[in-house]
Amino acid sequence: MTHWSLECSSCGAITPGDTLAQLCAQCAQPYLVRYERLPSGPEMLLNRWDMWRYAAWMPLAPDESPITLGEGATPLVPAESMARTLGVRAFWIKEEGLNPTGSFKARGMSAAVTRAKALGVPGVVVPTAGNAGAALAAYGAAAGLPVRVYAPHETPTPILNTIRAFGAELITVSGHIGDAGKAAREFAGQQGWFDASTLREPYRIEGKKTMGLEVVEQLGWRFPDAIIYPTGGGTGLIGMWKAFQELVTAGWIEEGLRLPRMISAQASGCAPIVRAFHAGNERATPWPDPRTHASGLRVPGPLGDRLILTALRDSGGDAEAADEDEIREATLEITRHTGIDASPEGGCALAVCRRLLEAGRLSMDAEIVLFNTGAGASYRA
Amino acid sequence: MTHWSLECSSCGAITPGDTLAQLCAQCAQPYLVRYERLPSGPEMLLNRWDMWRYAAWMPLAPDESPITLGEGATPLVPAESMARTLGVRAFWIKEEGLNPTGSFKARGMSAAVTRAKALGVPGVVVPTAGNAGAALAAYGAAAGLPVRVYAPHETPTPILNTIRAFGAELITVSGHIGDAGKAAREFAGQQGWFDASTLREPYRIEGKKTMGLEVVEQLGWRFPDAIIYPTGGGTGLIGMWKAFQELVTAGWIEEGLRLPRMISAQASGCAPIVRAFHAGNERATPWPDPRTHASGLRVPGPLGDRLILTALRDSGGDAEAADEDEIREATLEITRHTGIDASPEGGCALAVCRRLLEAGRLSMDAEIVLFNTGAGASYRA
Repeated sequence: MTHWSLECSSCGAITPGDTLAQLCAQCAQPYLVRYERLPSGPEMLLNRWDMWRYAAWMPLAPDESPITLGEGATPLVPAESMARTLGVRAFWIKEEGLNPTGSFKARGMSAAVTRAKALGVPGVVVPTAGNAGAALAAYGAAAGLPVRVYAPHETPTPILNTIRAFGAELITVSGHIGDAGKAAREFAGQQGWFDASTLREPYRIEGKKTMGLEVVEQLGWRFPDAIIYPTGGGTGLIGMWKAFQELVTAGWIEEGLRLPRMISAQASGCAPIVRAFHAGNERATPWPDPRTHASGLRVPGPLGDRLILTALRDSGGDAEAADEDEIREATLEITRHTGIDASPEGGCALAVCRRLLEAGRLSMDAEIVLFNTGAGASYRA
Repeated sequence: MTHWSLECSSCGAITPGDTLAQLCAQCAQPYLVRYERLPSGPEMLLNRWDMWRYAAWMPLAPDESPITLGEGATPLVPAESMARTLGVRAFWIKEEGLNPTGSFKARGMSAAVTRAKALGVPGVVVPTAGNAGAALAAYGAAAGLPVRVYAPHETPTPILNTIRAFGAELITVSGHIGDAGKAAREFAGQQGWFDASTLREPYRIEGKKTMGLEVVEQLGWRFPDAIIYPTGGGTGLIGMWKAFQELVTAGWIEEGLRLPRMISAQASGCAPIVRAFHAGNERATPWPDPRTHASGLRVPGPLGDRLILTALRDSGGDAEAADEDEIREATLEITRHTGIDASPEGGCALAVCRRLLEAGRLSMDAEIVLFNTGAGASYRA
């Protein structure tokens, strides 16, 4: 018996927390973790410098140790010079490039591998635009579990090299992450390995939600006005929105306080969420021929489309896309003006932030948190 | 007036803490920072997830903000499978690869650039085996200070690319870091820029000493039995030893408790400290024709030789070198068995650890902390 269960995000079907679950057996939509009880206040936090300080509302039994490499507890860097340049009141960058294997993917994989290991899987497979594969390779090594990764040929070379360095089996495929996903599912089905694809298992969200808990803790248990999040698969956005609601439910944050506006940043060459958001659709249609050098954003048909769009709308948020040259310029701007080694995805978030400020869709008076989801070094050939 | 002064580590000459100091004007040896008062207990620590949580015994005035990118507060990973393989009681890896720009150099540069900026320098120059240059480039960008870096041609390409990404001026030179140092000093003299070379300025040590404070805090305010530290310039080893003594002086740790054995790991192709230690010399003689793929260890004549050797001897420590193939194998061993992306320098520390255990120079009953000083990704072409 675990102190959480899994609830289908669409049909509400419930399954026990100790099930080796993938998608909902009824409707093939993602499960979300629901806790019997939420921690009552900050005194419940553990004194550790990683995301497991929030273990009390994570999927971890009291007698378990997580598979951890020090993921999370990343800096929230006050970027004052950028605030001045943008003309906004306050501007922070959540620097996820300081995670193991250089990206936010470490959080989700730490949580997912912890559960997969506890449930005794023989091996784990994942399709990836890059960083998720590197993260799984590392946590697989930490857990002593074999790992296979399917990645598009054009994944940045340093990331492919990292996957290999951890001893994972790397298969490169033609096409995009959707194509890699098909191959991964086929292999998982044949071999009985666990498929750790975004949202096909319920725990990566729980790891990613700690980004939101950390931002709120780092600001002194209050919300920023807006969070700009480069959105590929969108697990982090879904997870943070879940965490904010849990904070309110648990009574840590006063009800009625305005939750942050959740804003999706995508690349013009692959913007299914932006398109669906402005069309008023509940689901996104897959983006044909996705193209962007921000490889983590090359996700043409995210499985979490419905949950992402709900979070954007419920939060009074927004969604916008930036062109390739804007992304390149903004990436360089972060790197040279803040000392943070920005990824193209982080650059995309800045480019979108500027677009929204210029269009009056984001207030100059807002306190903004922008996510740099990975280390720029992983993208330099 | 600052609450610290600078004391020459050799002749004891004192200079005020607000001096833009390089080496001691009397004897050309490094200065060490001496504080008027040390913090009285852990309640003095700041609630932040970076090395500035120890600001009370760092060179920072109460009204100042540091130039920070979230350096420090790195994981101390309990490597249980490696402890079993090695046959030792307890084995941790201090994972410094999760610092900004992927190495422990971030700590020293955060402290050095904070002071250089406060003292109004026009620009900062550094010679580097690689990672120090990348770190300075980042902190220079964060501080809005121009940076010039001199690095050997054979510095790993990803590190050179990172230096360029931050907009620093990069000059590659024939030879080793000693040759780069000559060029850097000449440029600093001509332009009036500040020379941030290892130990030529007194604050990088204060940043690096936080590695020692963190290890002790992470173990619950107690010392491990041994610390194995890959030693190039040796600032971290000198800094940690200084921190441990300050902990005892301040009364945080009971006097009489055994301080850790400090152990230097070097590469057989460049082992000036190992040679001097076993010869019983007070100073090291420069290593001719230094060669190793662990580029951070390619420091043939460290300026801190005397201070390193003193720390090794006063702590009942040791020093040993490993061959290139042993280093390669041990690097891979860490990466594949722990999920930590080890640098060759971290691999060298493991290879030396194994040599010492096999020779009976390190007890199987010891609690060992091994430093992985940088991210393996920075070394993969």
